[in-house]
Amino acid sequence: MAKLPEKTDFPVSQVRRYLEPGSIVLVSSAWRGATNIMTLGWHTVLEFSPSLVGLMISSGNHSHRMIRESGECVINLPTTALTDTVVDIGNTTGAEIDKFAKFNLTHQKATKVGAPLIGECHASFECRLRDDALVDRYNFFIFEVVKAHVAASPKHPETLHYTGDGVFMVSGKIISRRSRFRPEMLD
Amino acid sequence: MAKLPEKTDFPVSQVRRYLEPGSIVLVSSAWRGATNIMTLGWHTVLEFSPSLVGLMISSGNHSHRMIRESGECVINLPTTALTDTVVDIGNTTGAEIDKFAKFNLTHQKATKVGAPLIGECHASFECRLRDDALVDRYNFFIFEVVKAHVAASPKHPETLHYTGDGVFMVSGKIISRRSRFRPEMLD
Repeated sequence: MAKLPEKTDFPVSQVRRYLEPGSIVLVSSAWRGATNIMTLGWHTVLEFSPSLVGLMISSGNHSHRMIRESGECVINLPTTALTDTVVDIGNTTGAEIDKFAKFNLTHQKATKVGAPLIGECHASFECRLRDDALVDRYNFFIFEVVKAHVAASPKHPETLHYTGDGVFMVSGKIISRRSRFRPEMLD
Repeated sequence: MAKLPEKTDFPVSQVRRYLEPGSIVLVSSAWRGATNIMTLGWHTVLEFSPSLVGLMISSGNHSHRMIRESGECVINLPTTALTDTVVDIGNTTGAEIDKFAKFNLTHQKATKVGAPLIGECHASFECRLRDDALVDRYNFFIFEVVKAHVAASPKHPETLHYTGDGVFMVSGKIISRRSRFRPEMLD
């Protein structure tokens, strides 16, 4: 089995570094003794501090009720090394299978929430439900990231960006325009 | 001057193709005879049909009031050819300059909203404000895409995904796992 990336604490106010690029994420949850994982591409950063993110979790997903009832989840960032797993998680349902077992993924204990981290992912963000005002209307959950774990390398892992129809774009190549920014626009 | 990409009608229910990958977008607006453009990375798809997208437009931006008052905007998709323009638009304010003029961008008339399309962008999505319930609390606007314009080629343009601190990831390379999806999961 591949070695798991070693993750260390990361400031929650800086999670935009990993979430703003808009890649597919794996959302893990726990409720009533069961765990689950879903593949999700519809998310956005909403605020630096408190560290807020919004996720559209369709009510058709088994995870929807688990996350709503438990009020918690972990947002995990997979790299291209996990491409087939990302697809397979999205094409199966936690109502029928145990996804950690089926896809040989490693539970890691979170520190502030009950949902598990996925050991194979590059980063994991522990989240508590902050506002469910738009859940009934749009399945839109607002979470606060309460703890962040990130692997130190690679600094810019290749990530998967879904376009629909079974096709992903891959990002990883970097361009910096730091010198072109006003200092107060950098963080 | 570079030739503008020729855009044609595109189904509004399929805009996730261009927005779900999570690249930086340029949001254009018009209000009281003025136009403006802002660079924005905090957005998510929310629904296929109606075609809904959510945008976090900070109240510190000159565009915030223009978009809230007019109830309209256009989400434009820039490619890496526009990298410096994307940065410069994000580092200036429409309170002081006319961004279309300053950055030599081409106004194109929208068909359903008053805000202009940006001719140089690969795609433009005309939006009407659908729900402002979370604007006061989170600056989060929910729009309905009412008309979509997309260039036919390239099929997968290189796009910019912001990480903060002046650094972008670039995506454009494609991997397909179509054969691994259950048919009902494809669209």
